[in-house]
Amino acid sequence: MKIEQRLEKLDVQLPEPTGPVANYVATVQTGNLIFVSGHGPVTNEGKIHKSQLGADATIADGYASARQVAICLLSTLKDALGDLDRIKRVVKVVGFVNSAPHFTDQSTVVNGASDFFIKVFGDKGRHVRSSIGAVQLPLGVPVIVEMVVEIED
Amino acid sequence: MKIEQRLEKLDVQLPEPTGPVANYVATVQTGNLIFVSGHGPVTNEGKIHKSQLGADATIADGYASARQVAICLLSTLKDALGDLDRIKRVVKVVGFVNSAPHFTDQSTVVNGASDFFIKVFGDKGRHVRSSIGAVQLPLGVPVIVEMVVEIED
Amino acid sequence: MKIEQRLEKLDVQLPEPTGPVANYVATVQTGNLIFVSGHGPVTNEGKIHKSQLGADATIADGYASARQVAICLLSTLKDALGDLDRIKRVVKVVGFVNSAPHFTDQSTVVNGASDFFIKVFGDKGRHVRSSIGAVQLPLGVPVIVEMVVEIED
Repeated sequence: MKIEQRLEKLDVQLPEPTGPVANYVATVQTGNLIFVSGHGPVTNEGKIHKSQLGADATIADGYASARQVAICLLSTLKDALGDLDRIKRVVKVVGFVNSAPHFTDQSTVVNGASDFFIKVFGDKGRHVRSSIGAVQLPLGVPVIVEMVVEIED
Repeated sequence: MKIEQRLEKLDVQLPEPTGPVANYVATVQTGNLIFVSGHGPVTNEGKIHKSQLGADATIADGYASARQVAICLLSTLKDALGDLDRIKRVVKVVGFVNSAPHFTDQSTVVNGASDFFIKVFGDKGRHVRSSIGAVQLPLGVPVIVEMVVEIED
Repeated sequence: MKIEQRLEKLDVQLPEPTGPVANYVATVQTGNLIFVSGHGPVTNEGKIHKSQLGADATIADGYASARQVAICLLSTLKDALGDLDRIKRVVKVVGFVNSAPHFTDQSTVVNGASDFFIKVFGDKGRHVRSSIGAVQLPLGVPVIVEMVVEIED
């Protein structure tokens, strides 16, 4: 099944690529690797979630935000590659979670992105990962995810 | 001298690979590079250190934790590669240190990992590095280290 | 125009490479990629800025610090490559900003580095990026930037 069909089956609509919020680009290819800029959660209506885990966002909120970031990242990758089936492997994901001082469930939050990638790409979606607590994030978003993917020759 | 012999001489026993705590994998190879997930300090008895630098952990504690993370990372790499002598170069290390607001000795803490890699691998262990203060980390661990290594063709 | 001429036109003098503050190296090459260690802002006189955004540093201060970090990074790259014109592309920049709990302008701060790279390298300077809030940074610096560049074969 094509990746786009799998997204349809999951009832996921890719939003317009959000584009960088400052002076950088969304993706850079070097060899077979595509490096993708850190993305925050922007809804398909263009709204930006703002919250902090352990303060005004629950783990379930954070998980949903990380899943939305993953959708935004796929939108960016589709824009860069034309066809998401060119992705051979999701190599690496780093998730930074806007965390109150005592919040220690960063891994559960970032699962929102990881679970989605594995649902969409199957074994090709299985990646290495770090989940880190950030004292704050740009625009006050609850989570930023950056990634590296490998594409077919 | 083989890397495993050098570990013996240092009286280091590799623990069982700890494995990911969530929905991701421990290593991904792309070309000659192995990306390794962020690891926390798990003792050879399977215990997880929890503490924060500048609060309830001293710099010496943090250094020891970072060294233990490096041991866990080697255990993961041995599991993935079969033979640690396949490693041509430790390319990059990023250390995130669970830091109280005024703690500024992240570099000294992460030396616990860097010193160990250089002791074990010699010049092949010399890597680029960033050391960053995190407001919190998954499960409350004092330090998370991720790395990239290059392997022989 | 050569990169060094462009630096002259911008009236930028590269300082002596600052070198690592601990047990690691400034750059590692693997294939066509150069990974560069996280750098903090060291002035051409060897002074280290210490401050926190949202506390005792303004956004303009932070922007200037990030620009100074970019200058230090170029100094390191010139030392490693001999000639900055060997750089084919700035691939990736990650900026960690020493942030008070409510500071959310990390992107504007890290623009100090991104704008500089694009001014110096033109389109080859356009990179992917993440900007993250750190609760503290080594030596209390306001910003740490690490990068990856691709060089010509």
